Amino acid sequence: MAAEPSGDDTPVLPLAVTLGDPSGIGPEIIAKAWRLRSAEGLSPFFAVGDMRSLSQVSDIPVERIHDPADCLGLFDRALPCFHVEESADVPMPGAPTIDGARSAFHSLEIATGLVRQEGAAGLVTGPISKARLAEVGFTFPGQTEYVAERCGISRTNAVMMLAGPSLRVVPITIHIALRDVPNILTAELIRSRAIVTARGLQRNFGIARPRLVVAALNPHAGEQGHMGDEEERIIAPAIASLVEDGLDITGPYPADALFTPRARAGYDAALCMYHDQALIPLKALDFDQGVNITLGLPIVRTSPDHGTAFDIAGQDRADPGAMIAAIRMAYEADTRRRASNAGA
Amino acid sequence: MAAEPSGDDTPVLPLAVTLGDPSGIGPEIIAKAWRLRSAEGLSPFFAVGDMRSLSQVSDIPVERIHDPADCLGLFDRALPCFHVEESADVPMPGAPTIDGARSAFHSLEIATGLVRQEGAAGLVTGPISKARLAEVGFTFPGQTEYVAERCGISRTNAVMMLAGPSLRVVPITIHIALRDVPNILTAELIRSRAIVTARGLQRNFGIARPRLVVAALNPHAGEQGHMGDEEERIIAPAIASLVEDGLDITGPYPADALFTPRARAGYDAALCMYHDQALIPLKALDFDQGVNITLGLPIVRTSPDHGTAFDIAGQDRADPGAMIAAIRMAYEADTRRRASNAGA
Repeated sequence: MAAEPSGDDTPVLPLAVTLGDPSGIGPEIIAKAWRLRSAEGLSPFFAVGDMRSLSQVSDIPVERIHDPADCLGLFDRALPCFHVEESADVPMPGAPTIDGARSAFHSLEIATGLVRQEGAAGLVTGPISKARLAEVGFTFPGQTEYVAERCGISRTNAVMMLAGPSLRVVPITIHIALRDVPNILTAELIRSRAIVTARGLQRNFGIARPRLVVAALNPHAGEQGHMGDEEERIIAPAIASLVEDGLDITGPYPADALFTPRARAGYDAALCMYHDQALIPLKALDFDQGVNITLGLPIVRTSPDHGTAFDIAGQDRADPGAMIAAIRMAYEADTRRRASNAGA
Repeated sequence: MAAEPSGDDTPVLPLAVTLGDPSGIGPEIIAKAWRLRSAEGLSPFFAVGDMRSLSQVSDIPVERIHDPADCLGLFDRALPCFHVEESADVPMPGAPTIDGARSAFHSLEIATGLVRQEGAAGLVTGPISKARLAEVGFTFPGQTEYVAERCGISRTNAVMMLAGPSLRVVPITIHIALRDVPNILTAELIRSRAIVTARGLQRNFGIARPRLVVAALNPHAGEQGHMGDEEERIIAPAIASLVEDGLDITGPYPADALFTPRARAGYDAALCMYHDQALIPLKALDFDQGVNITLGLPIVRTSPDHGTAFDIAGQDRADPGAMIAAIRMAYEADTRRRASNAGA
């Protein structure tokens, strides 16, 4: 019998957690997550962003680090922070600025670099404003695409999964007008998302044989073509070819039947045809615990599934639940990946 | 001070409950509802359909009536049934037939007539198969449109609301391909559905000043036109004009943000742009308790929000929860309407 991998699951490396937009709730929920580190059993992490944004919204101890390796001895008594400073003034909570957007962008760059260089075990990104980032030359639809490109992975092969306690969903098309969904949808797109999803469930969630289901595009799955033919033309053929490839995948199912408790018990992830088809049930069921995890990357990357919430930033009202879940999921995914690499 | 309306809320009339397709689960869930009449506190109702379909799936006592008025003295000891016989053979559970479809159609005709003639307090319809009914000359998209036409109400003015313990939703467009939704959607359609919804919440649910919210069509509500412009072109102007008319209505909101517990606490009904946008959250949250209630009719009409379930019919596995909820909602709506008419 071969020697087992060590079985020692103490983290070798901390996680890098970006503050996101400093005027959003990112700093607050990261400070709260650190405060709850013992109760929640969180593995060590360090913040990447402007230290002053943390102090502005929380009185937790924060200590500047210059090397992620310094994090481990420090984490028990203070939140380690890789400081990123864009301006003399600190952006205020609730009042986003150009400097704040630059800070979010550069924090993401630095944190991604640290994870890519194996200075950190995984990347957890705080919420950013896409519109603000666009103003400072960030040309990506979102952080997912940026990280994918930095990892040399095409956008199609980096797959956004939203995961909560009740449900995991993957939108096949994402940030496009609903009108464009039927035109963008192809069997090849469904195939590539499904394959990355199945592999991602194995690597990051330790599910040996993932069970996938596919939602229909049209109501009642089109009722044999009476209400749309994309099921017959596009979705069913994609599923059939994936089954031939050996995936455990079924559908297309009427989308409204797919998220009842009984239906959810039958699968590990649901592939959805468009953004709201995936996000409506996730947020209805797992409203403040949803995590965005990018599958198909060489690194671990997660994010809380909510926005900057500028309207409540700095008021001590933000719920750190999704951030805590994102940190935990990143840690668990890294642990599984290392165990699997060690065992392979 | 004027004399109060009697305040006596004992039902003057029973409800008419159609069996729906006799090969579906309709007969079983109606028999189960009758068995639970005391525990659930259900007001008297009578079945409309083939008595033999009830006996086939249940051993409850069933007694034939020829006049709804006979129901009230009988209901405690037997399920009264207005017998409809289409053929010598009784359709078997799980094996739908043309005769069964005819029976469903004629039961609906008779029950609607009885309610229209004020022989019954309201109409509760059992699940039918639209495809089967189409084969026997039923030219309506569903039972809702049939009942509306019989009441002299245009299809646009009869509004389908799905109501469960957690949520009430109204789809603005219903049984059409997703591809067609952006083209069918108009400000006038949203306006007419919203007005009927507000009035329906007052009449049937006793909500004096209903709070309505409107979902966006596109992800993130289009993000200022970056992902679709229907919010700016169609939905927002419709809302603005409804506000001018005095309705308490807001939106458009990103659809995925609209069904969290916090969001749901802020409204009485959500207007949704398409079928699955309304039905996904309803079934995810209220899976076996959803009731379909038609607003805008001169009569009360409800229905359990599920299909015939031919695959489990006759196996004593069907959950009567939604049928019981539909019977209760019809009774409550009728009571409120009568109280309001008496008080007016």
